[in-house]
Amino acid sequence: MIGPTHFDHLPNETDVVTEHQPASQNGLRRGNLALVLRALRAHGPLSRAQLAARCGLAKATVSSLVTDLGLRGLVHETGAAVPGQGRPGQQVALRPDGAHGLGLDVHADHVGVAVIDLTGAVVHQARVALDVPAAGPARAMDALAELARQVGQEPVGVTVSVPGLVDTDAGAVTIAPRLRWQGVAVADELAARTGFALDLIAVGNDANLGAQAESEAMPNVHDLAYVNGDFGVGGALVADGRLIRGSLGYAGEIGHMPMDPFGATCSCGRRGCWESQVGLAALLHACADPTDPVHDPSLDLASRMRLIRERAEQGDRRTLDALHATGSSLAIGVSIVVNLVNPAVVVLGGYFAALPEWLIEPVRDQVVATTLAPGGGGVRIVGSRLDFAEAAALAGLRRVFADPAIVPMREEAPA
Amino acid sequence: MIGPTHFDHLPNETDVVTEHQPASQNGLRRGNLALVLRALRAHGPLSRAQLAARCGLAKATVSSLVTDLGLRGLVHETGAAVPGQGRPGQQVALRPDGAHGLGLDVHADHVGVAVIDLTGAVVHQARVALDVPAAGPARAMDALAELARQVGQEPVGVTVSVPGLVDTDAGAVTIAPRLRWQGVAVADELAARTGFALDLIAVGNDANLGAQAESEAMPNVHDLAYVNGDFGVGGALVADGRLIRGSLGYAGEIGHMPMDPFGATCSCGRRGCWESQVGLAALLHACADPTDPVHDPSLDLASRMRLIRERAEQGDRRTLDALHATGSSLAIGVSIVVNLVNPAVVVLGGYFAALPEWLIEPVRDQVVATTLAPGGGGVRIVGSRLDFAEAAALAGLRRVFADPAIVPMREEAPA
Repeated sequence: MIGPTHFDHLPNETDVVTEHQPASQNGLRRGNLALVLRALRAHGPLSRAQLAARCGLAKATVSSLVTDLGLRGLVHETGAAVPGQGRPGQQVALRPDGAHGLGLDVHADHVGVAVIDLTGAVVHQARVALDVPAAGPARAMDALAELARQVGQEPVGVTVSVPGLVDTDAGAVTIAPRLRWQGVAVADELAARTGFALDLIAVGNDANLGAQAESEAMPNVHDLAYVNGDFGVGGALVADGRLIRGSLGYAGEIGHMPMDPFGATCSCGRRGCWESQVGLAALLHACADPTDPVHDPSLDLASRMRLIRERAEQGDRRTLDALHATGSSLAIGVSIVVNLVNPAVVVLGGYFAALPEWLIEPVRDQVVATTLAPGGGGVRIVGSRLDFAEAAALAGLRRVFADPAIVPMREEAPA
Repeated sequence: MIGPTHFDHLPNETDVVTEHQPASQNGLRRGNLALVLRALRAHGPLSRAQLAARCGLAKATVSSLVTDLGLRGLVHETGAAVPGQGRPGQQVALRPDGAHGLGLDVHADHVGVAVIDLTGAVVHQARVALDVPAAGPARAMDALAELARQVGQEPVGVTVSVPGLVDTDAGAVTIAPRLRWQGVAVADELAARTGFALDLIAVGNDANLGAQAESEAMPNVHDLAYVNGDFGVGGALVADGRLIRGSLGYAGEIGHMPMDPFGATCSCGRRGCWESQVGLAALLHACADPTDPVHDPSLDLASRMRLIRERAEQGDRRTLDALHATGSSLAIGVSIVVNLVNPAVVVLGGYFAALPEWLIEPVRDQVVATTLAPGGGGVRIVGSRLDFAEAAALAGLRRVFADPAIVPMREEAPA
């Protein structure tokens, strides 16, 4: 998706970065810079007076903070007329080119890149087909680095999205079964190949990054569940604006909720995990005999979805029954999550999002019917709009909203 | 439980209260007072130098903060010898009588009270049998107020625990089916009957209060799931030290996770909710015919548990089979939670805690076996040690750890 901005109206401008640290004068100043930058991200251009009111700061303080952010090239003045107020007011706005986030995505069958500017717009995107498990980590890292080098912008943060368990402190993949990666020092390898400073590079689990990005992209959504459907089923939960990581970082193993002690064998070796009911393998198995072209291992997700959609639209009974069964199992798992954490939104990504008429629309009613809270506790169930590279790019950009002072002041204010 | 302290070593001393607010000088000072008080709660008595190191503050700042806290009667100096260091050091410690939290508990069959001092010790506890649904809200509030009036200490906070959906802002119960309460202004009613200032009084959901108290009482536990077993099955989740409330406050409806579309009818009218498998009604139904004394509606939980335990210990086959089935269903639901949020601890309260040999010990192995993360993601499964009045009292006390300045300074430092 190129073009539209991902965060027109974001809620979290009042989070200050001093949390979990003793307050200090310097931290206070940097926290307030971030407060102003996030207010502009959330509400769009604002006058100094509006900024002061939104941030709960004195006008003189806001003026000084805006000057500082201007010298860093992060904001500029705009003369936009204020609708309904008649006279044009001088407003402060984010500079689109003030900072860029770079996202890289490693998947079983491709590597990808996206660049997002300070206003949330995607300004660059590319993808290269690659059999990552067969290529091995070194060649996959070469391909990733090549994608990163083709990017024109200097990023404030680089985030790599990986479908697996990540040691975020070390910037390394602990284990990613679908890539056949174990103990890969992704941040080090990328820094060595690209020259990016190591402290710019972060590595994250794909579902975690997806959940955070989806939640940031939605106005006033602080509680969100994200489920990605592929051969593996991954997920992540955001509660009160924060990703739930769990005590050892294992949270979000939604695909392995035990749903049926007597169910089919799962890829993990256990019986009746949710993935064995709603993973892509279960749908394909129910849709067609093993010799059917839909099982062709060389097909990418989009082509496979086209095949299934065609059959469903032609009224093929077996395909429709398979989609119906998958939708019902999907609804039960989603309803469990909804009863537990009362999200405002459940985002269904991957193949679920490609077949919304069968895997999103009908799921809504079933979830409401099996949730104790009236009306499903207000939950909305939607398809994902972001791919993993975009979600990673938004994560890279997040560094500047956490601490704008990472962008150095220039000698003179930019034009 | 009278005696032992509930928070010998608490993790959260570095949370500052400025979060979600613009930082200010006054907020900074109050936040740092709280930082020091929480460090003493977490680590026990500390020297000024140790406090400075733990809190990341200058020694002069710490001295001034300690003087302030002393004038409020919240801390005092102790001359305790430092083990292993030889010479006795002047240490700062919490004054037990510096502040008290008052907890009140409304249950279907009783009302209760507990008072907890600043060091976490229970200093008063009482309970009165009352058929609350039959008595109606007014008489139950009378009984609660009577319990509160018998307390000698002046509380810094009063919290009422209720098994239902609570509007915490209004201090009111929206709906509590098991009490047959709807729209009861608990805080107003209690203030009118006791003379407690309205802003001292909070009202909370029993499972939410239980989860927060259990997590605060455990060293270094930031991620916890709490499940209370009774005729209703309630729960709550704490992630990274914060209660998960959900977008509209409906989180924690763990009893209504849909487990079996063809299962037994639940109290909520749906089929196959977890409560219909692991609620007390399901266990009693499986244990004994309807005419059996174990079903006597006048029995309280403790007496009923005594009956079941006696039979299980005598090897009664039907009782053991019922406990085994309940334990298996309990393990599946707990495992779902463990896969989703990777808690460090799952606390099982209510009747589960009364029958640990059958409903806690065996659950552990089953949960580890059905969790993707190795070793169940490090989860410990334990019985609850706190009753609802104690959990509420800890919540009342929390106000002083969030903002010690709510306790006024005295003219002179207390002896």
